[in-house]
Amino acid sequence: MGADPLTSPRSARVTEVRHLHDRRHRAARGAFVVEGPQAVAAAGDHGISDLFVTERAAERYPDLVAGQRARGARVTVASDEVLEAMSETRQSQGIIAVCPLVTTPLDTLMMGAVGDSAAPPFLVVLDRVNNPGNAGTVIRSADALGANGVIMTEGSVDPHNGKCVRSTAGSLFHVAISDGVTATDAIAACRSAGVVIVTAHAAGDVDLDGPAAIPLLRGPVAWVFGSEAHGIDAQWRDAAGVSVRIPMTGAAESLNMAAAAAICLYATARMRR
Amino acid sequence: MGADPLTSPRSARVTEVRHLHDRRHRAARGAFVVEGPQAVAAAGDHGISDLFVTERAAERYPDLVAGQRARGARVTVASDEVLEAMSETRQSQGIIAVCPLVTTPLDTLMMGAVGDSAAPPFLVVLDRVNNPGNAGTVIRSADALGANGVIMTEGSVDPHNGKCVRSTAGSLFHVAISDGVTATDAIAACRSAGVVIVTAHAAGDVDLDGPAAIPLLRGPVAWVFGSEAHGIDAQWRDAAGVSVRIPMTGAAESLNMAAAAAICLYATARMRR
Repeated sequence: MGADPLTSPRSARVTEVRHLHDRRHRAARGAFVVEGPQAVAAAGDHGISDLFVTERAAERYPDLVAGQRARGARVTVASDEVLEAMSETRQSQGIIAVCPLVTTPLDTLMMGAVGDSAAPPFLVVLDRVNNPGNAGTVIRSADALGANGVIMTEGSVDPHNGKCVRSTAGSLFHVAISDGVTATDAIAACRSAGVVIVTAHAAGDVDLDGPAAIPLLRGPVAWVFGSEAHGIDAQWRDAAGVSVRIPMTGAAESLNMAAAAAICLYATARMRR
Repeated sequence: MGADPLTSPRSARVTEVRHLHDRRHRAARGAFVVEGPQAVAAAGDHGISDLFVTERAAERYPDLVAGQRARGARVTVASDEVLEAMSETRQSQGIIAVCPLVTTPLDTLMMGAVGDSAAPPFLVVLDRVNNPGNAGTVIRSADALGANGVIMTEGSVDPHNGKCVRSTAGSLFHVAISDGVTATDAIAACRSAGVVIVTAHAAGDVDLDGPAAIPLLRGPVAWVFGSEAHGIDAQWRDAAGVSVRIPMTGAAESLNMAAAAAICLYATARMRR
């Protein structure tokens, strides 16, 4: 690939990438780290600036590397040690990219949702969800089940957090995400777009499977999910038009948050077909 | 509480509890560790042998402690340092119990499922699922959505693994679980009980929301889920009567395994009401 390979794990370029495992550095640089061939493929046109690959990975994923070079990425062949030093995990599989942050301003997200002529807005709110695995799993479900966007309130995990990125399995690049939004702003945006705020609760008023849920799920809707430890902010409860319960038959008091979200989003998608 | 409190983190009793964070020790001793008031409450009548509490926790959860003592648990007041030394996490909240393993032989689980007169058998199989968070989340969903039991094949995580136990949020004690089962034995047990083996797959033959799924989900059914990395064993695919797909509308190729399982179990529970 022309230039000499990058072989020193102590090089400044390695340090630059490692810094991006830290939220403040990501915010300052406006960039984050994407690891592994599937995630890099999902990044597609999102403007990868730097792509680091081992020789073996370059041979194994020639189209991926050529495609990103054609899109303007600087491709650097690096030693296994360099990739290991850059990686947060052992899942890099010899390929790591630096990519601009994917988050979008709230008004852009709302315009996209309202402008989708196929169906009324279908939004997901993560209210102070700080578990990166749960947050990433919900982003993945939101993508798979056709939501227009995911709004993450202040106090939620950074969606560009490494574990969150891995949990999205590429969906981070497919669905619109706004982060650091205040509950006040998000509620105001939903109201001005005519979107009904819906919370999920074991003791909710409306049965997810009952007739009252049908018009609700077919209309403009924002599902709000909180952390298991703290639930959702009182502001959301006050603003919510409806609280919905998933019928449960066993001894468990509740579902895992990401499991409950998957069920609610699935039920919404089903009503809209 | 009578005896002097346990204050040394280096005591033999602390070491005994710590050993139970290791699978081989759990198997040898037939016991595992339960941390936190909610999990200890969920253990109920499962035969807690030892309960360790800080003075603060004893004051905070008097009924829980008295209830377990009445059931025969040896209650020991211990220092914060002892509880910290015993705990795998910082989530013990001053209360840790030693409890007999909860798993049940496969034939007992099957008899329970077949003997449930309210509905035909509704089973979940986790095939070589080694992610403790995913496994625990599915056990929790299986409980909440009314499945009769969870069969975990050889190569799956030990359901008594600390992270798995925490992910079940107490459901480990509510739903029958058989572990270390070979695929051959589990398939034979399903067949002899007339249970239809169903796999979930993005390219499955039957739409989860279509008419063909209705009789399937109302009948005797075992849902098989694999790990995201390895999928399910070929034996299960060969034995499966049907493969079912969750309709997806977005760009994501798939859902998180535990999210997909939640949707499939929810759809099954809905059909049975």
